[in-house]
Amino acid sequence: MKDFIIIGNKAVNGGKISLNDLPGSAGRMDVLCRCVTSALFISFGMRRDINVWLILKGEPSPEKIVRFNGETMRSLNPDERSSGSLIQKALLIDASDVEKQSTPGVFVRYGNLEKLLSEFEKEERPMFYLKEDGNDILEMVQNHDSVALLENGVYILGDNQGVFEEDEKTIENAGASKISVGPISLLSSQCITLILNALDRAAPNKSDDE
Amino acid sequence: MKDFIIIGNKAVNGGKISLNDLPGSAGRMDVLCRCVTSALFISFGMRRDINVWLILKGEPSPEKIVRFNGETMRSLNPDERSSGSLIQKALLIDASDVEKQSTPGVFVRYGNLEKLLSEFEKEERPMFYLKEDGNDILEMVQNHDSVALLENGVYILGDNQGVFEEDEKTIENAGASKISVGPISLLSSQCITLILNALDRAAPNKSDDE
Repeated sequence: MKDFIIIGNKAVNGGKISLNDLPGSAGRMDVLCRCVTSALFISFGMRRDINVWLILKGEPSPEKIVRFNGETMRSLNPDERSSGSLIQKALLIDASDVEKQSTPGVFVRYGNLEKLLSEFEKEERPMFYLKEDGNDILEMVQNHDSVALLENGVYILGDNQGVFEEDEKTIENAGASKISVGPISLLSSQCITLILNALDRAAPNKSDDE
Repeated sequence: MKDFIIIGNKAVNGGKISLNDLPGSAGRMDVLCRCVTSALFISFGMRRDINVWLILKGEPSPEKIVRFNGETMRSLNPDERSSGSLIQKALLIDASDVEKQSTPGVFVRYGNLEKLLSEFEKEERPMFYLKEDGNDILEMVQNHDSVALLENGVYILGDNQGVFEEDEKTIENAGASKISVGPISLLSSQCITLILNALDRAAPNKSDDE
């Protein structure tokens, strides 16, 4: 199981978002939608062993977490509007501190990065923070022990604004290791593609479920 | 200079496409939009040394080619709707066999894959066809001579339907070598990200222009 957490610094967390304006009034929700696509889709199917956790830190608050669960996902297509529509539906149900399913495979609750990481800490999951000065994932997958950790990893990424200092402290306190995917700073969705490809290459026979 | 050609088997090539329905009535235009984003965008800027050529093979025909030119591109954001909007504008101008600029950095003309590849053949550009049984690009970039070819490469990809037999013959006749990006068949946009990352890794100091 692999988990991707993407921090949406301005992503709207309540009310009806406009699918015609995901980058604007929805607070760069397009960034998060692209991350969902790159984490869950392959050419002829879906990666079933993945959760994508979107931390919506924008207005009107309080923060919400929307989870896309590959295993139970239905009615998701790779276009941004499709994942945007499922986020829209998730934001329209009454949220609580306990996760509720809004549509098949999509879940929503109140919560923030700190809370989520503390849950993963309890489960003793290895955590990885995408950062330019981190260890190169393609070098890491040369090592068998690292592959086992990465295959079970929780990956934390910022959005177009990156990760602000407070969140970075939370990530450090949770004990995440820094990893990188190459010499150039890329879009979050591109980073996810590169992480998954590195793992596909490390375990070519067991990494997908079409 | 690198060129990416994406074959849009059903992509609409005339009239006004609906930005609210890129996957449906526009003929999986979303696939092509994602390819534009993954080819041109990095975290804080744009790759200027890239052209993206979209072959629109759908209705009402005849086929058109829309080119996104990184060097002169303006008014493009990474969301699908943004590139979709520029494609929409390109389809609304009177096309001819000679390229016309529809908006800054976007060009349109009548044409098909065969014509485009013959032009690249005349320029003696190395051509690469993305295919599962091709040579692994990460192995290829270990070799200095291959890197020089890949850096100047024309990359040909299918869309969600792949590449049909007739186009595959055209690609073979043009002398393209098969390359692959890993053990799992991925979305065209994900393949582009992986090609560019392999080249970034091969030439870490000169591959982007932010």
